[in-house]
Amino acid sequence: MDVEQYMKTVGRAARQAATQVAASSTAQRNKALLAARDALDAAREALAEANARDLQRGRDNGLDAPLLDRLELTPATIDTMLEGLSQVAALPDPVGSITNMNTMPSGIQVGKMRVPLGVVGIIYESRPNVTVEAASLCLKSGNATILRGGSEALASNCAIAACLAEGLRAAGLPETAVQVIETADRAAVGQLITMPDYVDVIVPRGGKSLIERISREALVPVIKHLDGVCHVYIDEGADLGMASAIAMNAKTHRYGTCNTMETLLVALSEAPEVLPRLAEAYAAAGVELRGCEQAQAIVPQIAAASEQDWYEEYLAPVLALKVVAGLDEAIAHINRYGSQHTDSIVTRDHGRAMRFLREVDSASVMINASTRFADGFEYGLGAEIGISTDKLHARGPVGLEGLTSQKYVVFGEGQVRS
Amino acid sequence: MDVEQYMKTVGRAARQAATQVAASSTAQRNKALLAARDALDAAREALAEANARDLQRGRDNGLDAPLLDRLELTPATIDTMLEGLSQVAALPDPVGSITNMNTMPSGIQVGKMRVPLGVVGIIYESRPNVTVEAASLCLKSGNATILRGGSEALASNCAIAACLAEGLRAAGLPETAVQVIETADRAAVGQLITMPDYVDVIVPRGGKSLIERISREALVPVIKHLDGVCHVYIDEGADLGMASAIAMNAKTHRYGTCNTMETLLVALSEAPEVLPRLAEAYAAAGVELRGCEQAQAIVPQIAAASEQDWYEEYLAPVLALKVVAGLDEAIAHINRYGSQHTDSIVTRDHGRAMRFLREVDSASVMINASTRFADGFEYGLGAEIGISTDKLHARGPVGLEGLTSQKYVVFGEGQVRS
Repeated sequence: MDVEQYMKTVGRAARQAATQVAASSTAQRNKALLAARDALDAAREALAEANARDLQRGRDNGLDAPLLDRLELTPATIDTMLEGLSQVAALPDPVGSITNMNTMPSGIQVGKMRVPLGVVGIIYESRPNVTVEAASLCLKSGNATILRGGSEALASNCAIAACLAEGLRAAGLPETAVQVIETADRAAVGQLITMPDYVDVIVPRGGKSLIERISREALVPVIKHLDGVCHVYIDEGADLGMASAIAMNAKTHRYGTCNTMETLLVALSEAPEVLPRLAEAYAAAGVELRGCEQAQAIVPQIAAASEQDWYEEYLAPVLALKVVAGLDEAIAHINRYGSQHTDSIVTRDHGRAMRFLREVDSASVMINASTRFADGFEYGLGAEIGISTDKLHARGPVGLEGLTSQKYVVFGEGQVRS
Repeated sequence: MDVEQYMKTVGRAARQAATQVAASSTAQRNKALLAARDALDAAREALAEANARDLQRGRDNGLDAPLLDRLELTPATIDTMLEGLSQVAALPDPVGSITNMNTMPSGIQVGKMRVPLGVVGIIYESRPNVTVEAASLCLKSGNATILRGGSEALASNCAIAACLAEGLRAAGLPETAVQVIETADRAAVGQLITMPDYVDVIVPRGGKSLIERISREALVPVIKHLDGVCHVYIDEGADLGMASAIAMNAKTHRYGTCNTMETLLVALSEAPEVLPRLAEAYAAAGVELRGCEQAQAIVPQIAAASEQDWYEEYLAPVLALKVVAGLDEAIAHINRYGSQHTDSIVTRDHGRAMRFLREVDSASVMINASTRFADGFEYGLGAEIGISTDKLHARGPVGLEGLTSQKYVVFGEGQVRS
C-alpha cells in the first residue's frame, strides 16, 4: 500500500471512530484512560524492549546525546506517563456543557454546546511520552487522534499505542480512536496535513522550522506554537526589590522554555539604580548581558546588543537589555520585536498597568509576575497540549477546552420564521 | 507601483492603524461610526454618481441583470447602510471585558481579556453595501480592515470609503483603519491572503468556488462560509401539524439562503400520514420534490432522487426527500451528506431530541424550530459578518465576538515561580 492510500485508510478510520468517541459517555472515556494506564503498567517489559530497539538504532544512526536522552523511556518516565493518565481521567469533562442559553424575541432559546473538534493530528519529534500525553488529552475531550511521532521512536510509540488500544477496547471504544502512524516515510506528514475531510486540526509540537513548514503546507487548521521572545518591563517607580526578583526568576528559573524572558526593558528613571544591581546578580548566575548604549553607559561591562538581539529567542543564559524612556517605548518595543507570547510589567501605577494589559498584543500579559507562569498548569487548565501563538481559536496555553469547539443549540416549540 | 508593493504598503498601514484602533475608546469608535453615517448621508449625490459609472461600465461589459441589480445603490440601499451604522454604534463593545478571573495556588490571578484580532481582510463580490457592513463591524470590534470588493463596484466602493475615512478623521482615528483596495488587478487578492505579517484573518464573502480557492491558497487563517445543505428530520411520534409548518417554512420562506432546508427526512412510521399532506402543500408552493423509493411508493408523483441529490444545495424550489427508519439513520444521513451548517429535529421525545443535539455535527442544531432561524440577528448577536462552517474559532453565525480573540491576563503581586 502506498503512503497516500495508507494515510487515507487511517483518516477514514479516525473519522468513523471520532463519531463514536464524541457520542461516548464521560465514564467510558475515563475508563479507557485508566485501563490504558494499567495496560502500560503491565507492559513495562515490552516497552523497555521496544525502546531499547529504538535507542540501538539511534546509536547506530549516530543520533546525538540530547536526542537519545529525549528518546529514552526510563522507569521514571513511565511512572510520569501513568500519573498523567490518572490526572487526565480526574479532570472535568469539557464536552456537552450548554451555556449562554437565552430566549430570543421569536421565542426560541439559543445557547452554545461544547463539542469535540473531531479528529486531531499530532506531529511531534523524538519524545515517546508525548504519545500518551497527547492521546489522553484528545480522548478526554472526545476526539479521535492520529499521532505522527519521530521515526526514531517508532518502536516505542507502537508499543505505547498497543497499550492505549487495550484501554480503548476495555471501555468498549474503537481502537482506531488513537492511531500511531506506522510508517517512517516522511510523505505521511504531507498527507496528514492535507486531508481536511479526515482531519479537523493539526497540533505540531517541535522546533520552529517544523511548525513553519507545516503551517505553510497545511490545508487543515494548525494550532501553532512558534517562538517565545518574552519581555519584562521595569516601570518608572517600580518596587525595585520585586522587579529584581521577577527579572531574575523570568530569566534564570529555566533557560530552555518558551516562557523564559529574553529581553529586559528598564525605564530610564530606574536604570541607574537597578541595572548595576541586576548586572551583578546575572553575572553571578552566569548570564551574559547584551545591552543598548544607555545600558552600557551605566554598566560598562555589558556587551553591545545588535538589532538582531531584540528578535532573538536565546533559550540560553543570554539576555538582551534595553533602557527605554517609559511605558510608550516599552509597549512599542514589545509589539515590534516580541513574538506575542508572554510579557510582564513590574509597576506600582494602576493606569500604566492597565494600559500594558490592553496594548501589549501578546497571548499572555502580566502585571507584577514572572513570565514563567505562562503555562497550562499554572493557569489552572489541568493539562496542556501546547501554547498557541495564534490569535484565532486558542491563544496562550491550550488545555482540554482548546480541543473542543462550541456549536449553537436551539430549543423551539414549533417556531417558524415570519 | 506593482501590486505586491502596493498591497504591502496597504498592509503596513493597516497594521499600524490596528494598534491605534485597538487602543481607542468605545466612545471614539462609536463617534467614527456615526460620523461616517452622516458623511454617507451628505454624500448621496456623489455616491449615486460613482455608482452610475460602475453600472454604465457593467452594462458596457455585458454584466447580467442580477449582477447589475446587486451592484445598484438605490436611495433605499443607502438608507439601510445608514441604519446599519447606527445599529452597530449602539451595540455593546466586546473589547476589553475580563472574564474567568480566578486565583491560582501560586497566588497569581488569571483571567481572559477580550481583544481585537488586529487586521481583518474582507474579500467580497459585487454588493457595495458590504463595504459599510464589514467595515463597521470590524471597526466596532477594534480591528483595522482591508476591503477587496468586486472590481465592477470599484468606483462605488471608493466613494463609500471616502465617507468612512471622514468618519474616522472626525473621531481622531487613522483613516487607514479602513482601506479599500483601489486596483482591479486580481493579483491583489493573492497578495492579501498571503501576508500573515500584516493580516490576521480573511473573511471571504461569496460563492463556494471563491471561498474554496481562497482557503486553498491562503497563508492567513480564513473564516469560511461554505454551503448550507440543511435538513429537517420529522421523528417518530412528532406533532405532524408542527412538523408540516416547520418543513414548509424551512423550505419556502426563502429559497436562496444558506439556512434553507435542502433535504427533508421523515421517519418511516410517520411517512404514510405526513408525506401526502406535505407533497400537496409543496406542489401548491411550486416546490419540486425528489424522493427515495419509499417516498415514491407513498406519493407516486414524486420524482426519483439520485445519490447526488443528497449532497445538493439547490438554493431553489427543489427539495430532496428521504424516508428513514428512525433517529439513527437520520443522524447518519445528516453527518454523511450534510454540510455541517444547520439541522433540525421535530420530535416529542426528550431523549431523542438530546441525542440529535449531541450527535449531529453541525454548527447549529435545533429542536422543533425552522432552520431559517440560523442567523446572527435571530440568535441575538446584533449583527453578522458571516456564518462559519468551520469548527475552529467561530462556528455558526459570526458577530462582533467572532472578530475578537481572548488573551490571558495575569495579576500578580511580585510572584515568581519556584
